[in-house]
Amino acid sequence: MRLSEVGERAILDYLIPRLSFAGGHLRPGDDGVDYLPRGRVVVTGDMLVGSTDVPPGAPMESVGWKAVTASLSDLAATGARPVLVFVEMGLPPEMELDELKRIWSGIEMARDRYSVMVAGGDTNSCRDLVLGVFALGEAERPVPRGGSRPGDLIGVTGTFGRAAAGLHSILTRDLDHSWEALRRSFLWPVARIEAGAVASRYATAMIDSSDGLARSLYDMSRNSGLGYLIERLPVDDEVTRYALAHGLDPERLVLGGGEEYELIITFDPSNERQLREELASVGCELIVIGRVVEGRGVWRVQDGAVVQVPELGWSHFGR
Amino acid sequence: MRLSEVGERAILDYLIPRLSFAGGHLRPGDDGVDYLPRGRVVVTGDMLVGSTDVPPGAPMESVGWKAVTASLSDLAATGARPVLVFVEMGLPPEMELDELKRIWSGIEMARDRYSVMVAGGDTNSCRDLVLGVFALGEAERPVPRGGSRPGDLIGVTGTFGRAAAGLHSILTRDLDHSWEALRRSFLWPVARIEAGAVASRYATAMIDSSDGLARSLYDMSRNSGLGYLIERLPVDDEVTRYALAHGLDPERLVLGGGEEYELIITFDPSNERQLREELASVGCELIVIGRVVEGRGVWRVQDGAVVQVPELGWSHFGR
Repeated sequence: MRLSEVGERAILDYLIPRLSFAGGHLRPGDDGVDYLPRGRVVVTGDMLVGSTDVPPGAPMESVGWKAVTASLSDLAATGARPVLVFVEMGLPPEMELDELKRIWSGIEMARDRYSVMVAGGDTNSCRDLVLGVFALGEAERPVPRGGSRPGDLIGVTGTFGRAAAGLHSILTRDLDHSWEALRRSFLWPVARIEAGAVASRYATAMIDSSDGLARSLYDMSRNSGLGYLIERLPVDDEVTRYALAHGLDPERLVLGGGEEYELIITFDPSNERQLREELASVGCELIVIGRVVEGRGVWRVQDGAVVQVPELGWSHFGR
Repeated sequence: MRLSEVGERAILDYLIPRLSFAGGHLRPGDDGVDYLPRGRVVVTGDMLVGSTDVPPGAPMESVGWKAVTASLSDLAATGARPVLVFVEMGLPPEMELDELKRIWSGIEMARDRYSVMVAGGDTNSCRDLVLGVFALGEAERPVPRGGSRPGDLIGVTGTFGRAAAGLHSILTRDLDHSWEALRRSFLWPVARIEAGAVASRYATAMIDSSDGLARSLYDMSRNSGLGYLIERLPVDDEVTRYALAHGLDPERLVLGGGEEYELIITFDPSNERQLREELASVGCELIVIGRVVEGRGVWRVQDGAVVQVPELGWSHFGR
C-alpha cells in the first residue's frame, strides 16, 4: 500500500503510539514535548534528503538510523549527552507504507542504541524524502568549533575514508564480500556520543567529520582564525586496500570522504595522556594527526614539504 | 543567480551572520546552540513543504514567516513562550538566491514579531522546498490536547474561515481588492503567543486550529475520549460575504479551512469571565462556541438537531 492509499490518519495511528513519553505534561500526539532539564541544553539539527543522501539500494532502516545518527553526532561534537529527538518527515505520497515502517524501525534502532527518546514528530507530503531530525541534549560546558589555540594538538577518534569507500562500493554495485565492512561503515555509522562527552573535558574545540576531514578542519579554521597542520593522515588500512583495488586515491577518500562521524578534537598537549586514557575507557583510540598553528588555513606535510589541503568534502548545490 | 551557481559556502556565508547569538558557549556557525533554561522546556516542530503549502504567486517572505508562525503556534497551543527556533532548509538547486534571501527576510520578520531567536539551522539540496522549523519555549505547566472534562466550555480566539477564503481567492486568481484582508489572513497569519500564555492558566486543554476547526476538535476528542458539541459556529462576516459572492458554503470554509492559527481552548465554566478578561487584555476576544460532552466525537447543533460534523480539514497524502 502506498502512503496516498493509506492516508495521513492511518500513518499517524501507526507512528504516535511508537513515540517515547518524555514524562512531562504533554503526551505523544500532543502539539509538543515538555521536559525539565537539569542544566544547560544543547540543540542541534540535521536534515537527511533522499535524493542526495540515499544511494539506490540502501536499506530503508539505515536511512532512519543515519538521520538520527547525524543529528546526534552534532550533539556529540559539543560534548552533550542526548535526551530527545524530534523527527519531521517529508514523505512522497507514492512511497510504500512498508518503506516508512522500515525507516521508522531504523529510527527506533538508533533510539535504543543511543538511549534517547523519540518524543515527537510531524508527517508531510513532499516531492522528496526528507527526515529533519532535531536533537536536544545536555552539557555543562558545550565545546565550540572555534576554540583551538596555537600549539594545540589535533586528534581524531578513528581512521578515515571507510564511509567514502563503502559508498563507492554501493554506487558501483561492487558487492564483493571483502568490502562488506566498508559498506556497513557507510550505511550504519555510529555517533561518538561517549567519546564526545569524555573529550569535552579536555577539548579546546571539537567538530564531527560529517562533511569530510578536510572540510571539517576548514570549518574549524573559519571559526578560530587559526591554521590546522596535518602531519599524519589517519588512513584506514582497508580503505587503502579498497583504493588500490579500484584505482582510487586513498588520500582523497580520507580527506574528502564525508558521511563519517568521527570527532576531530583539539587539545593542549599536556592533556594528551589523560584524553587518550579516557577515550580508551569508552572504547575509542585517540589518533593524533597534527597541530594547530598561526595563520588561517589547512595544510599537510607531504614528502617533507608543507602543502595546502584543498577543501574537499561534501558540498550541497554542486559547488 | 541560482543556488547551484552560488554554492553552499556562499549561502552559509550569507546566513550564518544573520543567526541570533543565544548567549551560551556556542556561537552561530557552531554545530548547535546552547542555553540555560529557567524551567520546563517545550519543544515543537512543523515542516512547511513548497509543493503542498505554497500556492503559486505567494511572496517568498510570507513562506518564511508562515514556517516560523506554524511552529510557534504549536508552542502557543501548549501555553509556552518561545525562546528560540532552529531552521532546517531543503532548497531546490534551481532556486534563485534572491528567493532564499526573501524567505530568510520573512523568517527575520517573524523573529522580530515574536521576539524569538533564530539560533541555528542547516541547508540542504532537495527536490522540494522544505522548511523544517523546530521551536523551543518555556512553560510552567504546558497544556495538553486531551485534558478536557465533560461540562467544560469550548472557546476560540477568533472567527474562522478567513485563511481558507483567502487561499481560494489566491488559487482562483480573483485579485479583487475587497478580499485583500482575507488573502493577508492566509499569507501572514499570526501565532497567538500571548493568548496561549494567558489562557494556559485556565485551560483544561488547548490546540491550535492549523488543521481546521473540525479536524482540530477531532484531535482533541481522540486524546480526551470525549465529545465536542459546537452550538455556535465562529463564522467570519467577511468569509460569509466571500462565500456568497463565489457560490461557496461558508460553513465548510469555517469547519474545514485550516492554515488558521487560532487557539481552541476548553475550560471550566466558572473561569469564563476571568479568561475572557485576560484574553481581552492581550487584544483577543474569547468566542464560546460550545461545550464538552460525554462520548467520543464532534457534533454541531443545526436547525435544532444535533448532527455529526464530518472530519473536514487538511490531510496529507490525499486522504
